[in-house]
Amino acid sequence: LVRRLIEEGDHVLVYLDRRRRWLVRVTKGAKLHTHEGVVDIGGTLGQPFGIRVDSTLGATFYALKPISIDFLMKAERRTQVVYPKDLGLIAVKTGVSPGATVVEVGTGSGVLTGFLANLVRPDGHVYSYEARPEFLAVARRNLEKLGLADYVTLVGRDAKEGLEPRDADAGIIDVGDPWLLVKPISAALVAGAVVAAISPTMNQVEKLVVELSEEGYVDVESLEVIVRGLEARPGMTRPAMRMIGHTAYLTFARKTASAKE
Amino acid sequence: LVRRLIEEGDHVLVYLDRRRRWLVRVTKGAKLHTHEGVVDIGGTLGQPFGIRVDSTLGATFYALKPISIDFLMKAERRTQVVYPKDLGLIAVKTGVSPGATVVEVGTGSGVLTGFLANLVRPDGHVYSYEARPEFLAVARRNLEKLGLADYVTLVGRDAKEGLEPRDADAGIIDVGDPWLLVKPISAALVAGAVVAAISPTMNQVEKLVVELSEEGYVDVESLEVIVRGLEARPGMTRPAMRMIGHTAYLTFARKTASAKE
Amino acid sequence: LVRRLIEEGDHVLVYLDRRRRWLVRVTKGAKLHTHEGVVDIGGTLGQPFGIRVDSTLGATFYALKPISIDFLMKAERRTQVVYPKDLGLIAVKTGVSPGATVVEVGTGSGVLTGFLANLVRPDGHVYSYEARPEFLAVARRNLEKLGLADYVTLVGRDAKEGLEPRDADAGIIDVGDPWLLVKPISAALVAGAVVAAISPTMNQVEKLVVELSEEGYVDVESLEVIVRGLEARPGMTRPAMRMIGHTAYLTFARKTASAKE
Amino acid sequence: LVRRLIEEGDHVLVYLDRRRRWLVRVTKGAKLHTHEGVVDIGGTLGQPFGIRVDSTLGATFYALKPISIDFLMKAERRTQVVYPKDLGLIAVKTGVSPGATVVEVGTGSGVLTGFLANLVRPDGHVYSYEARPEFLAVARRNLEKLGLADYVTLVGRDAKEGLEPRDADAGIIDVGDPWLLVKPISAALVAGAVVAAISPTMNQVEKLVVELSEEGYVDVESLEVIVRGLEARPGMTRPAMRMIGHTAYLTFARKTASAKE
Repeated sequence: LVRRLIEEGDHVLVYLDRRRRWLVRVTKGAKLHTHEGVVDIGGTLGQPFGIRVDSTLGATFYALKPISIDFLMKAERRTQVVYPKDLGLIAVKTGVSPGATVVEVGTGSGVLTGFLANLVRPDGHVYSYEARPEFLAVARRNLEKLGLADYVTLVGRDAKEGLEPRDADAGIIDVGDPWLLVKPISAALVAGAVVAAISPTMNQVEKLVVELSEEGYVDVESLEVIVRGLEARPGMTRPAMRMIGHTAYLTFARKTASAKE
Repeated sequence: LVRRLIEEGDHVLVYLDRRRRWLVRVTKGAKLHTHEGVVDIGGTLGQPFGIRVDSTLGATFYALKPISIDFLMKAERRTQVVYPKDLGLIAVKTGVSPGATVVEVGTGSGVLTGFLANLVRPDGHVYSYEARPEFLAVARRNLEKLGLADYVTLVGRDAKEGLEPRDADAGIIDVGDPWLLVKPISAALVAGAVVAAISPTMNQVEKLVVELSEEGYVDVESLEVIVRGLEARPGMTRPAMRMIGHTAYLTFARKTASAKE
Repeated sequence: LVRRLIEEGDHVLVYLDRRRRWLVRVTKGAKLHTHEGVVDIGGTLGQPFGIRVDSTLGATFYALKPISIDFLMKAERRTQVVYPKDLGLIAVKTGVSPGATVVEVGTGSGVLTGFLANLVRPDGHVYSYEARPEFLAVARRNLEKLGLADYVTLVGRDAKEGLEPRDADAGIIDVGDPWLLVKPISAALVAGAVVAAISPTMNQVEKLVVELSEEGYVDVESLEVIVRGLEARPGMTRPAMRMIGHTAYLTFARKTASAKE
Repeated sequence: LVRRLIEEGDHVLVYLDRRRRWLVRVTKGAKLHTHEGVVDIGGTLGQPFGIRVDSTLGATFYALKPISIDFLMKAERRTQVVYPKDLGLIAVKTGVSPGATVVEVGTGSGVLTGFLANLVRPDGHVYSYEARPEFLAVARRNLEKLGLADYVTLVGRDAKEGLEPRDADAGIIDVGDPWLLVKPISAALVAGAVVAAISPTMNQVEKLVVELSEEGYVDVESLEVIVRGLEARPGMTRPAMRMIGHTAYLTFARKTASAKE
């Protein structure tokens, strides 16, 4: 059954315009203070999601039902996080879906971890390794806020020392020296599994594809995803004047049953 | 438990190189005939996924474990299908994930339908409308081959006449006149749900965003996803010389509790 | 003979870094005041172009020899001006080169006018029409500062009322309603001449290409130029993280000897 | 005076559609044989440029007046040539214009050489170095066909051994090891001159920018130019479905009066 009404403790995405939005927990009497006036968050209790709420200054806000990406984009972050455009292609190219077991190296703030956990639940699991304790704590808080902590095992250890999981369906490498992680992650993956790596520079990709090839991986592909906005207005439609130039290269490869000799 | 060994009736992705790959069902004695020689598919029975198989002409093939996108890209197709780059962002921006109810207008060959069904299983469901009976039959065959038919209800009817589902979490519009579908699909969606539309031309997007705005949708965003390959080779790395220029614009919007008056 | 030394009255491009540069006229005792200290411009008199000059705060500046595009980018501007990336392709596709006669509709601030004038000198000429007197004055000042006024005839009149030149080699349309200028500019062009139009929206391009086709133009091509920076640093090379998304579409077409009947 | 009529010995660009065009010399009785029938080229003598000519099979052709880029794109080529999109930005960013002296290393087929010669004539000059004699002969033929041989000095020698010109206004590097040419070309340039290099790979750019910086160049910028077609048709406008992914990176830098110590 889909619940339509906002209840105590729910999060709402308070939407003003494409650049200004807030993720707020609804409690009795809660207020959101913005440059466009105060929004009576508590007043949305018992109302349907998507309800319009005018601020004290007369600006129009909406209390939308947040989806996974809203939580992820508003997560506490200490590191560069993976962009939505990249998350999507990682999901498609790795085949991560309900029931899958995923091994991730480089938890960071846990945003990609949470994205993956949301895809594999309720029967799958994500094992995520992070050597830096301060990031692990951030990731843990984010996953708890997302309600996804049950689907994730966070491991505070350098993955180069070895990974416990065996026969995982997919592997994710999100660290600065991805070529050093190919051997360790391979031991954790079932033959045929897809590995995805996120790397900002072409030099990282160069070293990574050499190592993947030496470890017997095939179907090695590196690419970048570019998103271009379209400003559609009747009689005045054109591409957006600003766009993001580059975030990271994505490299995908499939593990075979034996490394190259 | 992850199954590592190839059994009778399994599909394998027979991989030669980045451009040549085949999706083959494994049965005793099965052979694959290629320009690079004959591959003994039956001989992979009882072997691990990812096993190397040399052809009669000595070319190197691998019997990989296919993932969802392999089945989708090899599906029978009668229509232009949605590209992987676009599938990924649709998943991220609509929030379609395990347990979700999705309404789709324009089943086509069922490739996007299958992608969505794979994301919502085992507890979610996809209702997909297609007015042209010849496509519906193709889509049904594809979903059965993917093992996803249980998670999809195909409806052979013009969606402009109305949709049955109520309170769906997400709506997908993949038809040539998307602006005519905004009102019908809105009736099927819970307030706060995200709608995604796939449209090749700017003119379709222009009309669609006007209609979405009139129906009270907010957070309306149109964009295109461009994927650019990187040919990484030590000392000779550069972007790929060929790329796909355009497939379709994606438009996303969120339903509010009331249409604009 | 190339002059190497800076003389009284010369302009120098005072360069601090890729974002901060000034175009300054050199006179005895001239100073440039910047956030990084005062630069002794007068002190460069008699020095070679390219000389390093340290500011009073110890920052490193260079007194470079400005080239055409430096003057154009520092020109007084009241309108959106054409970007370097677009200027270049206009030159190539129209064939504007020494000796050519060019007709331009929409002088604006005169930046494109000056660019064209610099290409056709010393024997060619640019006739440029501008209906708004306030822009004409700006354009005149810019062309004089560039030393190119002799190669340009500025006409303060709405080009829809007709153009004087005949048998021009190339035509440039840089106004908001380009489709209304096709007939007038055609009368000014020799058969075989190339027309180039600059238009921000796809709707303008749609109307323009219809009109060009009806007037018998062939080889009609619309495109946009996208420039992407590469941040090359040893071991850390990647595309620039920010880029310009869109400026304008460029449309090119060739006049035939007879309009379509 | 602009000549409007086709004379014996003129070249015409015989245009069928955007993909099919021929550069043909007009002589009495000349015929062009195409898949769409035979075109009576000789019959255009005395006709205006831009005249329509129907083939024996009834297809519509036009005898257009070729511009510089038409000759360059139809030049004899033995090497990868620089694309129009890249030629344009090279012109803008180097400031090559009438009267300039340009030094080029790597003549190749002479296409870029011819482009530059056309920009600097009648008073400027291009000195172009090519170590491989077989290319030099091709370049010489192309420049003669273009009528630009008088503005170019071709030198058959490895430029690493030193360049004769002094105080040139711009330098062009179009060889596989551009970083080795920075020192030699610097000796030929006036301080303040702009250098442009064309390099397909990121690794070449990495090494080049290091060397430029060590030789005291400033305003170092690397970028690539991407051209995207727009298929504008009333009510059905969209970006072209195919595009060129990558040709080469362009690197620009300005020589200062002294190398870094």
